Amino acid sequence: MLTNNLLLRAAKGEYVERIPVWMMRQAGRILPEYRAVRSSVNGFKELVKHPELICEVTLQPVDILGVDAAIIFSDILVIPEAMGLNYEMVESKGPLFPKTIQQSSDVTQLTTDVVPNLQYVFDALKLTKDALNGRVPLIGFAGAPWTIFAYMIEGKGSKTFSQAKKMLYTDPQLSHLLLDKITTSTIAYLKEQVSCGVDIVQIFDSWAGVLSKAQYVEFALPYMQRITEAISEVPVILFAKDAHYILKEFGQTNCAVIGLDWTIEPQKAREEVSRKTLQGNLDPCVLYADKQTIKTETERMLQAFGSQNYICNLGHGVYPDVDFEKAKYFIEVVQNYSISK
Amino acid sequence: MLTNNLLLRAAKGEYVERIPVWMMRQAGRILPEYRAVRSSVNGFKELVKHPELICEVTLQPVDILGVDAAIIFSDILVIPEAMGLNYEMVESKGPLFPKTIQQSSDVTQLTTDVVPNLQYVFDALKLTKDALNGRVPLIGFAGAPWTIFAYMIEGKGSKTFSQAKKMLYTDPQLSHLLLDKITTSTIAYLKEQVSCGVDIVQIFDSWAGVLSKAQYVEFALPYMQRITEAISEVPVILFAKDAHYILKEFGQTNCAVIGLDWTIEPQKAREEVSRKTLQGNLDPCVLYADKQTIKTETERMLQAFGSQNYICNLGHGVYPDVDFEKAKYFIEVVQNYSISK
Repeated sequence: MLTNNLLLRAAKGEYVERIPVWMMRQAGRILPEYRAVRSSVNGFKELVKHPELICEVTLQPVDILGVDAAIIFSDILVIPEAMGLNYEMVESKGPLFPKTIQQSSDVTQLTTDVVPNLQYVFDALKLTKDALNGRVPLIGFAGAPWTIFAYMIEGKGSKTFSQAKKMLYTDPQLSHLLLDKITTSTIAYLKEQVSCGVDIVQIFDSWAGVLSKAQYVEFALPYMQRITEAISEVPVILFAKDAHYILKEFGQTNCAVIGLDWTIEPQKAREEVSRKTLQGNLDPCVLYADKQTIKTETERMLQAFGSQNYICNLGHGVYPDVDFEKAKYFIEVVQNYSISK
Repeated sequence: MLTNNLLLRAAKGEYVERIPVWMMRQAGRILPEYRAVRSSVNGFKELVKHPELICEVTLQPVDILGVDAAIIFSDILVIPEAMGLNYEMVESKGPLFPKTIQQSSDVTQLTTDVVPNLQYVFDALKLTKDALNGRVPLIGFAGAPWTIFAYMIEGKGSKTFSQAKKMLYTDPQLSHLLLDKITTSTIAYLKEQVSCGVDIVQIFDSWAGVLSKAQYVEFALPYMQRITEAISEVPVILFAKDAHYILKEFGQTNCAVIGLDWTIEPQKAREEVSRKTLQGNLDPCVLYADKQTIKTETERMLQAFGSQNYICNLGHGVYPDVDFEKAKYFIEVVQNYSISK
């Protein structure tokens, strides 16, 4: 039983007496306590594979910022690695895959039996669930199949992901084969996360915005649907950044919650999706401003979304150079907001 | 008088007997003939300042690809440079400003008397206009004030432009002062382009997509409006990439044409903007596909937009690694499309 289950009630469309709030990327990045842990290990990937440290940094924002949920500290790229495609995290540049997927034989070699390779995540989840002791829900997550596919083809971050998109146009059959394998792996991964005690999961489609609607409908949406149908034990949050065109279609999936970036106006999202809980969507840059601006912008957003069927969050991950006191103030503003306003 | 004025007639909403087509970034990037010129000079910036070579590479796509308009080969960052903020073009990385705008005194030091500093562009325009000899219209262009502002603060390309956005939240007054100076400079620049014979101008808001609608309405739209009101001599095309939320507002400006990226569905754009010519919006990655796919995708788009009040284009600049034969085929498909279909 959870002491604070506001987030789960909001996700399920149940009444909440105040709006729940958490921040994407809250574990890591902005807290001095996180940086201390981070500098004690040899690189990001060592941290991602260290269950005790994952547990520690996952709990930090709960203890220090007072958020209404913990999200496990991990990386969406653990899935390609567990499928057989290793990556490096290059300091201040981002992920780099020494080998990428280029042809049919590359896809054939990938395994979908990923659970044995992800034991470090499951160990971390169990430790964290115990350590949380029911204070707040624990959020699990995975990358969306399209976004994982994009990294596996492109091999690194990109403004356009033109190589990944090229494969969609030049070899749709191979693309679907790879997307299918990623989806199978992701479902197995998420189901095991649920077994380890996560209360809700979020699917991050970070690079949705480079696709046209027609391509999203053909190459991304069916796999998102498969995930929302397979994960029936806990609520599923779908977050497709910059995919303004897909809200209605997400509204017709089995997901419980739809995450929004800050380019989507709350009222417009409510019009397009009437029966789902919405999550988001403060511009992360608002946290650079003074406290009065943070309060004004946040309360304007809360007013626009309304207090029910809503989970407050940023519209993307918190930026690394944000003062954690500002982030803490944002959390306070939401938690002090009277829903009778 | 122009031999082929299809683009201008489409821009003005007049009847066209076939759909005009050009490609953003058609001058440069994909043509072997461009690469030959490019390798004959010492870096991109030398080329941008060399009127005879600008003229040559501007004409290449007209001669080789058969496009229905020429767009002057240049860079949106000539404006900050003419205002006093130099930039370098770092090979395979992009623009870099050694000094950026950080405080009030940095803004004060900038000049808006930019025309004398941009003589190389005007010389190139006059040469090109003469060389075109009325075959097709000549397109002039400039960066949108927000996008120029973003580079002047951030100092380089960025996925988030978080430093530029930070200034909008932390010092809106200084932000408006800088945006105002950029706009004044841009209007002077565009007016002189018109004097040199450009038939139409396009304003590129390449980084519009990082702003929320509220921020775009406060910090970008008013300056776009000022430009469309100041440039009354020729039609103005507004193109704000990834700013799906601003189409209706663009529809209420004095612009003649609204450019669209490929995340916008043609039918949706027609619903939101009823009285403007639309331009776009093929996913540049379609040009990686085989000819049959290029034909199918292009004709599907033409069908969706309809043949009137429409200028065919990609949804963003053509990618550097596209085979120019594929680009040429795209142009042919549009030009062979029967508007009675």
